[in-house]
Parts: sequence; C-alpha cells; structure tokens
Amino acid sequence: MGSDEQAIRDVIANWQRATATGDAAQLAGLMAEDVVFLTPGHPPMRGRETFMQLQAGLRSFRIESSGDIQEIQVSGEWAWCWTHLQVTVTPAAGGAAVRRAGNTLSIFRKESDGRWVLARDANMLTVEPTPSEP
Amino acid sequence: MGSDEQAIRDVIANWQRATATGDAAQLAGLMAEDVVFLTPGHPPMRGRETFMQLQAGLRSFRIESSGDIQEIQVSGEWAWCWTHLQVTVTPAAGGAAVRRAGNTLSIFRKESDGRWVLARDANMLTVEPTPSEP
Repeated sequence: MGSDEQAIRDVIANWQRATATGDAAQLAGLMAEDVVFLTPGHPPMRGRETFMQLQAGLRSFRIESSGDIQEIQVSGEWAWCWTHLQVTVTPAAGGAAVRRAGNTLSIFRKESDGRWVLARDANMLTVEPTPSEP
Repeated sequence: MGSDEQAIRDVIANWQRATATGDAAQLAGLMAEDVVFLTPGHPPMRGRETFMQLQAGLRSFRIESSGDIQEIQVSGEWAWCWTHLQVTVTPAAGGAAVRRAGNTLSIFRKESDGRWVLARDANMLTVEPTPSEP
C-alpha cells in the first residue's frame, strides 16, 4: 500500500475517532477549508466553518462510527474513496439511538504541506430500522 | 478548458442524450465495464451488464434529464465531477411523470484507448413534489 493511501486511511480513522471523542480541533484539521458535503434531499453544505458549527450543535450526542473502506484510488494530488459506513447517534443523557448506514464516496486532496484532507463528500446513509428490544 | 475536461463534459451530455433516445449501444460505451452505482438505501449496483439490463427494463418510459455541472477536476487518468441533475421519467403510454432532482458525485477514468468513461457514481437524487395541475 502506498504512503498516500495509508495517509488517507489515517484521515478516515482519525475522523471517526475525533467525532467519537468530540475533538473539534482534530476534526477541523482533517477537512479542506472549502470542503463540500453532499446529501440526498438537502442543499450542499459548503465549507469547514459551516460543518464545524453544525458539529458543535451535536455535543449532546454520542456519535460512534465504523467504516469499511471498499476502494481507494490515488492520482497525483487527488484521491477518491468508497466507504461503507455505519453511524450510531445516541443522546449523551440517555435515550434511543439512531443508526444510519450506507455508502459514502469521498474526494481527498493533498494540501501543499503534504497533508491529505477531505475535499468533497457524497453521503448516502439512510436510517436503519431500530433493532427490537429483547 | 482542457481537452480531458471537455471529453468528460461530452460523456455527460452524450449520457443524457443516449438515455433520452434509448440508445443502449451509445450508453454502454460511456461507462466502464466495472462501473459501480451507489444510491441511498440500496446495495451497490455493480457492472455495465447489470446496469444495461436495468436500462432495458425502462424502455416503456421516456427519460429526460438535464445536468448542471458544478465542478470537474482531472488528475492524470482519473477525474471527479459534481453535477446537479434533474431527471423526469414519464410512461411512454402516457401518465404522471416522476421528477427527481439532486446532486451526483461521479468518478471518471481514462481508458487505455483514450476514452473517458464513468467508473463510479454516487446518486443522491430524491423525488420532487409533483407540481399541482393547473
């Protein structure tokens, strides 16, 4: 595996860790300033600042995610990655969890300082049925 | 605009034309043999053959689409493109049209013969409300 591919895998793993621990500073460093998030049924969410404001509003939730990387392709300063993702969002104060799962197709860019960051993200996760209680 | 970017714009325009006219042979030539289509709530659709079988089942519908390309980035033999797409599907025998709209994030690959083809596609279109009849 090339060092670029490993660096992108690290960004994805660090993203999940930073989201789980609520480490906003680490999370901000993993995306481009001009990042765009695309989702079904909503206008594009543009920019790191917008995303971080939304993220701050989620502090009362515990977010756990696990990703299964399907493909990574690096070409010069750009790369794309297809991941199957599972995200569970639980109110920190307790309450029912919401589980979302599905595919993401993400574009990564190598910045001038050599860091790989998320640049564009297509998120196709949908809400999964709640497992029945025992 | 580079010739690669123009070639990708041509693939997108030809895709819309081939879908509208039902030109299966042209459509098949615009995608990679190992193309993967990602959508919310469904497993990935893998391969040109699978897609073309699905397309054959849509012969009784008229499919009109228009795309507004937001960004294209070419890097070597790979490129990505973000498009805002509107698709209207109408039964050829008459009947209510279904209109879908939203963003796509697509990966294109330059084949060894120099042709650009669609390789991966994230489709985030959702059904739009039907316009009220006059």
